[in-house]
Amino acid sequence: DFLAIDGEFSGISDGPSVSALTNGFDTPEERYQKLKKHSMDFLLFQFGLCTFKYDHAEEKYIMKSFNFYIFPKPFNRSSPDVKFVCQSSSIDFLANQGFDFNKVFRNGIPYLNQEEERQLREQYDEKRSQANGAGSLSYISPNATKCPVSIPEDQKKFIDKVVEQIEDFLKNEENESLELEPCTGSVSKIKERYIVISKVNEEERKRREQQKQAKEQEELNDAVGFSRVVHAIANSGKLVIGHNMLLDVMHTIHQFYCPLPDVSISVQMMLLDTKLMASTQPFKEIINNTSLAELEKRLKEVPFSPPKVESAEGFPSYDTASEQLHEAGYDAYITGLCFISMANFLGSFLSPPKNHVSARSKLIEPFFNKLFLMRVMDIPYLNLEGPDLQPKRDHVLHVTFPKEWKTSDLYQLFSAFGNIQVSWIDDTSAFVSLSQPEQVQIAVNTSRYAESYRIQTYAEYVEKKHEEKQA
Amino acid sequence: DFLAIDGEFSGISDGPSVSALTNGFDTPEERYQKLKKHSMDFLLFQFGLCTFKYDHAEEKYIMKSFNFYIFPKPFNRSSPDVKFVCQSSSIDFLANQGFDFNKVFRNGIPYLNQEEERQLREQYDEKRSQANGAGSLSYISPNATKCPVSIPEDQKKFIDKVVEQIEDFLKNEENESLELEPCTGSVSKIKERYIVISKVNEEERKRREQQKQAKEQEELNDAVGFSRVVHAIANSGKLVIGHNMLLDVMHTIHQFYCPLPDVSISVQMMLLDTKLMASTQPFKEIINNTSLAELEKRLKEVPFSPPKVESAEGFPSYDTASEQLHEAGYDAYITGLCFISMANFLGSFLSPPKNHVSARSKLIEPFFNKLFLMRVMDIPYLNLEGPDLQPKRDHVLHVTFPKEWKTSDLYQLFSAFGNIQVSWIDDTSAFVSLSQPEQVQIAVNTSRYAESYRIQTYAEYVEKKHEEKQA
Ligand SMILES: Nc1nc2c(ncn2[C@@H]2O[C@H](COP(=O)(O)OP(=O)(O)O)[C@@H](O)[C@H]2O)c(=O)[nH]1
Ligand SMILES: Nc1nc2c(ncn2[C@@H]2O[C@H](COP(=O)(O)OP(=O)(O)O)[C@@H](O)[C@H]2O)c(=O)[nH]1
Repeated sequence: DFLAIDGEFSGISDGPSVSALTNGFDTPEERYQKLKKHSMDFLLFQFGLCTFKYDHAEEKYIMKSFNFYIFPKPFNRSSPDVKFVCQSSSIDFLANQGFDFNKVFRNGIPYLNQEEERQLREQYDEKRSQANGAGSLSYISPNATKCPVSIPEDQKKFIDKVVEQIEDFLKNEENESLELEPCTGSVSKIKERYIVISKVNEEERKRREQQKQAKEQEELNDAVGFSRVVHAIANSGKLVIGHNMLLDVMHTIHQFYCPLPDVSISVQMMLLDTKLMASTQPFKEIINNTSLAELEKRLKEVPFSPPKVESAEGFPSYDTASEQLHEAGYDAYITGLCFISMANFLGSFLSPPKNHVSARSKLIEPFFNKLFLMRVMDIPYLNLEGPDLQPKRDHVLHVTFPKEWKTSDLYQLFSAFGNIQVSWIDDTSAFVSLSQPEQVQIAVNTSRYAESYRIQTYAEYVEKKHEEKQA
Repeated sequence: DFLAIDGEFSGISDGPSVSALTNGFDTPEERYQKLKKHSMDFLLFQFGLCTFKYDHAEEKYIMKSFNFYIFPKPFNRSSPDVKFVCQSSSIDFLANQGFDFNKVFRNGIPYLNQEEERQLREQYDEKRSQANGAGSLSYISPNATKCPVSIPEDQKKFIDKVVEQIEDFLKNEENESLELEPCTGSVSKIKERYIVISKVNEEERKRREQQKQAKEQEELNDAVGFSRVVHAIANSGKLVIGHNMLLDVMHTIHQFYCPLPDVSISVQMMLLDTKLMASTQPFKEIINNTSLAELEKRLKEVPFSPPKVESAEGFPSYDTASEQLHEAGYDAYITGLCFISMANFLGSFLSPPKNHVSARSKLIEPFFNKLFLMRVMDIPYLNLEGPDLQPKRDHVLHVTFPKEWKTSDLYQLFSAFGNIQVSWIDDTSAFVSLSQPEQVQIAVNTSRYAESYRIQTYAEYVEKKHEEKQA
């Protein structure tokens, strides 16, 4: 009754180090804008999807998991020749997990965003109206569509079936499971073109016209490719679950819908982030490590209970006890398991306690559309609906210094103020949080005549930044 | 007696289309600068090397071919985390040829440029002097080298052997062939660290010190990785042959030596471009198509004769008759074959004619260090030694126009001037060459009052561009 997703990317940051990208005192807006600026040139090249459906009679979930390899194979000579960045460390990480890059680059499923899809439709329409224009001699641009490269037959069926399955999944809760092959296949080109002969009889002409249109529709579907699966997920009305899913959501919008807006995103669906859920009451106190692998282990032990989940007929089952490849489908599966355990745990507080809490339960609603913010100390999530939380940062200082400074220099500078915490912004600045807000003004005052460094309060820093933006 | 090389890249152009990147009226300097700007963010990720050695007794060449997969695997936490761009069309092209991306990303050999190598040596030196500094308590940066990730043992041997072999190759012309395994292997990490205990006796201390230094030297060699092979090639004193090799040379310098200079490159070795050779007298008249595959076919037929080449013992042999993967080692091999056929053909003009012309023959010298310029109409090559040719371009016009214009609009505009040739620069400008230089001034004059377009002579265009640069 819900879907879990996970994405693998060709990299995380094209500029700042990951710790600079995820500063502890980012505001949700800043974090979003940094990720938009530094993470979107990478490719989301594996998409894991796992569907979970509760069988009330048997009191267990039936799950189906899919691994989609994604690659923006150029569709024809006028289609965009996408350039994407790879980050060695991310690629190396995936390589060590046994990730199969050949499946991405040889058999990856193409996609179009909405604008590209619109343009391609227009191209087809133009071609058609030219063909109908009884031999009009208008000049055809040398860029015009020529030999469309189609999706291999077996993958075509795969996509059609997944789309169908997701659509079924919401139409008919009792539908039989569909068998779906794993996504593989070899690449082939279809180069047929129909040459319209001018003096065929009217009936034959119409028949050919229809044939041609059906073929064009198929070509279009192929080119839209994986975007159709994403649209089906988004339109399913199902709760969509991810772990630490902000980057996944941003990449998904960017790649399959449209360029990301400047300030923030909103979605017309329900998302739930299991990393946020695990970091929030009542889980916060009993879960130490919210990284996916650790969370999954923790949720098998008391007071939690491992959920009953079986894979549907014809689907491979994952064994969480043995070590697994770091593939997106498996991570999506684990994410789903975590959600079920945590949801059911919430049911234990009801009176009478409930063993099974569904994805539609009121108990889950507080977590909807709030995405976990990595390493932010005092704002747990980015709110997709309504304003973000405004934390009090009256114990925080913004410090500027020469780039030779190390953490030890900052500790030394603030040695009179007891325990401090340092959050690096870049080479020459950091936030320093003091344990007592009263000391903030003292620190600012004593720094007034310093030459090598500069200290201001967090409030002053925010104001200046705001002023700069206005100018 | 010579080496042939070929590289495969993750893409060609990060901005302009390839036809805009290779305009027919680029000067060598412009072409170089455009490639520097738009091609260097891609990765050279397969390097083909083929060594050819003439056996005088048997009157045949013995060749050894190698395919190196290259990947900038981060060496330690402080080493650069390289980002590189991939172009879908190039990746798709290689995928269709059966290129094995997993070998690149899982088992690729790392490399460092000269500056990175220097920095790493410095790090090691610093560490050593700190260790010797009898417990000095200087602060160690959190970025300092920690767990170096080494090259897998089998690849290490592979690199050492290749370096050795190339060095041998020039020291001793009669040396036995070395057996070299194909480059594969699994990745493993070595995490040993030596902890210096302060009260060991002097002798033991020295022994450990030496052991440690040997280990460090090995780690350094591993990190420099494939760059060592490239340095051995460059320092071999052998003629290095490539087909259409400008991009290969630029990537090689950029990746394994240093950032490319602004204006042009020079090399301290001998290069020969078989595409240039095939496009020059006396070959120009008898060779129609100089693309590598076509050239290789043509050179099997009269008046050429296929060279006698055998692969060394223990090396796989390529069969040029059956279809082959588009791998760099094979392309390097074919390039070598083409060179031998063309060199021997030059020998047929001597009196008495010679069947075998070596890579050191005077007959070859005119082709040294001149690299083919793709699609340039009137300058055949970029000269690595001395000034480039200055073609007369007095029949060429530079035309500016609205971006809606197509080639047909230009043909129409110049319909009064007979045969013209169009070289697109970008959306809104192109060079147009007229068949008669006398008509150039007429065209400029008639355009004086035109509003939608502007025409200037090539000389005027060059001058304005020069002025802009000065300002
Ligand atoms: N900088 C940054 N990195 C992220 C973000 N989301 C995921 N990552 C990267 O993905 C890794 C996994 O993060 P997480 O989901 O918290 O843990 P895991 O899935 O259990 O390994 C992190 O170590 C980061 O490198 C993000 O929002 N910002
Ligand atoms: N734009 C550009 N592309 C190049 C250059 N060198 C090689 N290429 C690309 O490499 C392909 C092969 O070029 P070439 O060596 O002439 O022919 P082939 O090796 O027989 O296929 C071309 O079609 C280009 O796309 C260059 O200098 N500029």
